[in-house]
Amino acid sequence: MRVTPCQATLAGAIGLNLLLYCAWRDRGGVTSLLLSPPRSIPSIPILLWDFENDLAGTARSFASLPVPVLVAAETAPYPPVPLPAEVGLLPLCPTADRPPPLAHPKLHVRIHHTALVPDGTHAVPGLLEHVGHAGRRAGDTRLVAAPVGSVPLRCQELRLEPRAWTARYGPSAPGVCRAVEGTAVLLLRTRDLFALPFPLARPVPTALFVQAAFRGWGLRLMPAAFPAARRPPISPHGRWKAENLAETRRRRLMHDLGIKREVLADGRERWYGCSKDTARCFGTVHARTPQYLLAGRWTPPCCLRALRETAQHVAGILEAAGVRYWLEGGSLLGAARLGDIIPWDYDVDLGIYREDVRKCRWLAAAAAGEPVEDTEGFLWEKAAEGDFYRVHYSRSNRLHVDLWPFYPRGGVMTKDTWLGHPQDVEFPESFLHPRVPMAFAGFTAMAPNNARAFLELKFGPGAIENPEYPNPTVKYLGQD
Amino acid sequence: MRVTPCQATLAGAIGLNLLLYCAWRDRGGVTSLLLSPPRSIPSIPILLWDFENDLAGTARSFASLPVPVLVAAETAPYPPVPLPAEVGLLPLCPTADRPPPLAHPKLHVRIHHTALVPDGTHAVPGLLEHVGHAGRRAGDTRLVAAPVGSVPLRCQELRLEPRAWTARYGPSAPGVCRAVEGTAVLLLRTRDLFALPFPLARPVPTALFVQAAFRGWGLRLMPAAFPAARRPPISPHGRWKAENLAETRRRRLMHDLGIKREVLADGRERWYGCSKDTARCFGTVHARTPQYLLAGRWTPPCCLRALRETAQHVAGILEAAGVRYWLEGGSLLGAARLGDIIPWDYDVDLGIYREDVRKCRWLAAAAAGEPVEDTEGFLWEKAAEGDFYRVHYSRSNRLHVDLWPFYPRGGVMTKDTWLGHPQDVEFPESFLHPRVPMAFAGFTAMAPNNARAFLELKFGPGAIENPEYPNPTVKYLGQD
Repeated sequence: MRVTPCQATLAGAIGLNLLLYCAWRDRGGVTSLLLSPPRSIPSIPILLWDFENDLAGTARSFASLPVPVLVAAETAPYPPVPLPAEVGLLPLCPTADRPPPLAHPKLHVRIHHTALVPDGTHAVPGLLEHVGHAGRRAGDTRLVAAPVGSVPLRCQELRLEPRAWTARYGPSAPGVCRAVEGTAVLLLRTRDLFALPFPLARPVPTALFVQAAFRGWGLRLMPAAFPAARRPPISPHGRWKAENLAETRRRRLMHDLGIKREVLADGRERWYGCSKDTARCFGTVHARTPQYLLAGRWTPPCCLRALRETAQHVAGILEAAGVRYWLEGGSLLGAARLGDIIPWDYDVDLGIYREDVRKCRWLAAAAAGEPVEDTEGFLWEKAAEGDFYRVHYSRSNRLHVDLWPFYPRGGVMTKDTWLGHPQDVEFPESFLHPRVPMAFAGFTAMAPNNARAFLELKFGPGAIENPEYPNPTVKYLGQD
Repeated sequence: MRVTPCQATLAGAIGLNLLLYCAWRDRGGVTSLLLSPPRSIPSIPILLWDFENDLAGTARSFASLPVPVLVAAETAPYPPVPLPAEVGLLPLCPTADRPPPLAHPKLHVRIHHTALVPDGTHAVPGLLEHVGHAGRRAGDTRLVAAPVGSVPLRCQELRLEPRAWTARYGPSAPGVCRAVEGTAVLLLRTRDLFALPFPLARPVPTALFVQAAFRGWGLRLMPAAFPAARRPPISPHGRWKAENLAETRRRRLMHDLGIKREVLADGRERWYGCSKDTARCFGTVHARTPQYLLAGRWTPPCCLRALRETAQHVAGILEAAGVRYWLEGGSLLGAARLGDIIPWDYDVDLGIYREDVRKCRWLAAAAAGEPVEDTEGFLWEKAAEGDFYRVHYSRSNRLHVDLWPFYPRGGVMTKDTWLGHPQDVEFPESFLHPRVPMAFAGFTAMAPNNARAFLELKFGPGAIENPEYPNPTVKYLGQD
């Protein structure tokens, strides 16, 4: 057959088309047009190095598979671990003289899936492909988990309450799986993994489950198991170091993920928040709108807990000293609405009779000028901003209860410092005759009688029924 | 003209080629083949938010340019800063429910250059394009700097000595520019910027200069200047907070970059290392090969400094107490080679006469069993590993001098604990009759007479002339 010049050119052009199309598909991965990798790579196992385990054995086992294998570790293991030549190292901590860790060439081979393999797992030829195949079935399932060892995995529900900085685990409803209990190989699409903000943060399973839950990704359990390698014995000091490291990593992860409380399936709680020894976990509040509110969150649970504790402590001391106090402003509003601090509030407000200040030794000391730490470590001081008092959770952690000294004048309760908030107004003394007990923040506090009338006087009609953020001109409820 | 079917197909194929070629070039940037953005975008300015400056004014000024503008900040500024609608926010801290920061859509518009604009810079129409044009000229020049305000920029040389954890600034030779002094807009290719491990780490200029120097990138100065905005007044407390933040960021950056000492052009030094209050900046040493040596580095300069200080302190105390001591092992080797600690050594070794231990109160106390802190905070203890003593830099920082008690037996100095190192051998007492002064680590120490013979006895012939790492089977000199 004779080929015309036009036909020859056309064939060339079509060939070039094909070449360019392939190159286009590969771009971002392969550096050269002609170096297309084999299509057969189903998934790349990334081995997770945890402290003092059998990395060398795990690496040897996976190196026998016909896929690229990477060991992920913050830095190169020390003391050094002998790795097979075909196993690469993925140091997660960036260093100044190298490209970013996720630019590692092995991650840019065209592979659809990445398997995250815990240390101590034994490779089984074909099993990774099998799991990878399961991972290809779509729906909202994007994570596949296969057990390691003979203990089957158990599904858990995982509900995130970002506003409350809380992750809540629970028994899973049938067909719902958001996290698994037990040691597992986790598999997901490589592009899904690296589109996460914390793709390889430790501990990897928790990091993945939480990030997947944020995105509504489903998780699928595989029955087929990888054998667990017999672990080498670990010294007591080694175990202590390993547990210490795991705890440090978990705290760092929770900080990164914005989780300050985990509620486990058995009801136990793990807290990652402020304490008496730390600083308050939010900074100076501007325009009555704390930074967390602008970030779409409410008061961190550790802060609420510390505020409750401070309020109960202060109320107890005031009562014992015979200081007449009552719930004020937002705190009374919270008590009327839900018997607790409003979930986005950042302090507690109490009114007191000014003439009673001298009855309480801590208040009297603060009034005399110097901040004073009471026997339980709470710090009492006169506010720099005006004629009122502040009791801080501790010298370090400045979560506080404000005490507003009022005095009666012609049947009206008034005071000398006004902050200009709409609710900061005088009120008839009759609200305090009598004061009445009211549930608040886990104890029984004293409150004005007829709280509704008191609150509507201060905040306007419907204040109890219609919650609103402290300064709706900056941010209003429902804006998130 | 008649078009044959073949010609028509050919034209189509060529058109498809072009389309595919363009798509291939764009891949990784543009999400759709047809959504190609205007080619006219010369560079995207990224505004750098620094504390308490005029972000709003800077943003308004740059928003007037026909390019996308981003504000880079760790988190959204608080209290909130009103930004023009066309200015995007690039929060650098990743959050769990969003894609990674560098996945920001505006960074993936096809833009060749990114300009990093310090807060307080005034936009000038056309100037960014002008600087971008300069950035297009090649060679090894990949960074362009344009001054902000009326003070011209000054070029500096920047030499990195990664093995010594040191960055050294100096006056630049003509035509050599690695860093600039002064406030500058910095411009580079977007792909160069985001191929760096720390693309937007603060302070941005230092981070860029160091990373560029690691890669041998040149820097080009532009004479054309951006006007500086008049800065709003800053309160003393605000200034204190800003300086504090800048210092914290600089320390974090230096940690990330692996720099523990900056030597400035005027000779001043800035240290970012261990102190009496921190832990030693390297962990337990395995196989006589510290982790830093495996990472291709030598002893951190702060550790060398602390070792020198400890050695001088210990020698002074021993001399005052009449304890006969001498430089041993690697320390004598360092003294013979360069009058200092070997630059990759991790401790100092001194020999002492065992019978003299009782003459020194701290040694005697350590011998009695309990570690003891001397009046200057150094910690003396008997080693758990055998019959020798250790003086630590401090209770926290366990950099140390080892004291090896020898005793004479038939003219040979011997001891009871042997660690099995090749150099750990007996030697004729005649080397100590007399002991001789020798420069070491900034002071004059006592050493065996005929140091060369002593060292060749311990380390073998040519020990002084042929430096080697402590355990060449693990890592040898020249392996980096």
